[in-house]
Amino acid sequence: MGISVKIQDIIKITNEKFLNLYKIKYTDRNNQDKNWIFASRQQDVPSESNERKQAPDAVVIVPFHKIENKLVIIKEFRPVLQGCQYSLPAGLVEKGEPIAETAQRELFEETGLSLTRVISQSPATYVSAGLTDETICLMHVECEGTPSRQFLEDSEDIEVLMVSPREAEELLANKDIHFDVKAWLILKNYASSRNIFGDSFS
Amino acid sequence: MGISVKIQDIIKITNEKFLNLYKIKYTDRNNQDKNWIFASRQQDVPSESNERKQAPDAVVIVPFHKIENKLVIIKEFRPVLQGCQYSLPAGLVEKGEPIAETAQRELFEETGLSLTRVISQSPATYVSAGLTDETICLMHVECEGTPSRQFLEDSEDIEVLMVSPREAEELLANKDIHFDVKAWLILKNYASSRNIFGDSFS
Repeated sequence: MGISVKIQDIIKITNEKFLNLYKIKYTDRNNQDKNWIFASRQQDVPSESNERKQAPDAVVIVPFHKIENKLVIIKEFRPVLQGCQYSLPAGLVEKGEPIAETAQRELFEETGLSLTRVISQSPATYVSAGLTDETICLMHVECEGTPSRQFLEDSEDIEVLMVSPREAEELLANKDIHFDVKAWLILKNYASSRNIFGDSFS
Repeated sequence: MGISVKIQDIIKITNEKFLNLYKIKYTDRNNQDKNWIFASRQQDVPSESNERKQAPDAVVIVPFHKIENKLVIIKEFRPVLQGCQYSLPAGLVEKGEPIAETAQRELFEETGLSLTRVISQSPATYVSAGLTDETICLMHVECEGTPSRQFLEDSEDIEVLMVSPREAEELLANKDIHFDVKAWLILKNYASSRNIFGDSFS
């Protein structure tokens, strides 16, 4: 499988600054010509997937505040929702920037907290490969400091929340909240850790 | 927060069949005019987020095969990757279709397996709200039967894998594999369940 499919061409069909549509022309396993439209942050025709894997578009940070003994999440305004979602601090990786630096910079800008230790890091993973080539790296970190809004960019509108497993469970039960799917999965897992470890993260 | 932001207008800027770019014009918390481009599967200007929450664009299925005592994942060709990714069975919800029906239909088409029980279901969550309004519902289910490729659509190229926590751990350690982020998080959680429960899912 996979071997039978052949990419013929990739064409950029819009010319926006931050996000564009591309069309892939390929022949499927039955030798039929097919088109697939996808969205991409890349400014030029996307390169081979193997190259992309090395450099994710964005870092999504899973910050644990050691002194508070709580997980840090954010409530963030998103134009797409015409409202707020509960998510994790995140940001686009700048060209050539080490991923840990992106994480440190974005965590500080969005929450005022300082990254003290990288616990673990995922490979570049696809957020929704039927729709976009966007990849993210998930980075579990430890952090310290006091939440602050003073380092936000003008375009950002973010509130910082620090939650225990019990508080995570309460958020998950609130039907009025919109979640990012990664935040939802991580909160779910964190909430269930309570049953095993009590009200602490381990 | 959020109250100060005001959506002025949403304009569709492409005219493709399955995916389009939209531009949101809004005034931010400092009363500055801003634009935000996003990708959407919707054919018309997206409605209010509260309505959207009720009907996710897609269902992502987390199938557990009771008799095999294994988690079911798929290896799927994706044009966007110009190759394969490891992910979960999933599919778009058709207009008016109950989500559990989508899950049953897509699980069968993509794997040949039969859904026997819905264990749990997430709310509609955002896959990457900086880039798209796409929402998905995660559905944990039990299933039975023998994996089969005979129900695949022509455009689909899918291999079914059934994995134990130990096998999940091996996959996660393989640097040549591209993962969907939801599959990665779920496999990670599943793999770590081994340490607590032994080589079984519970």
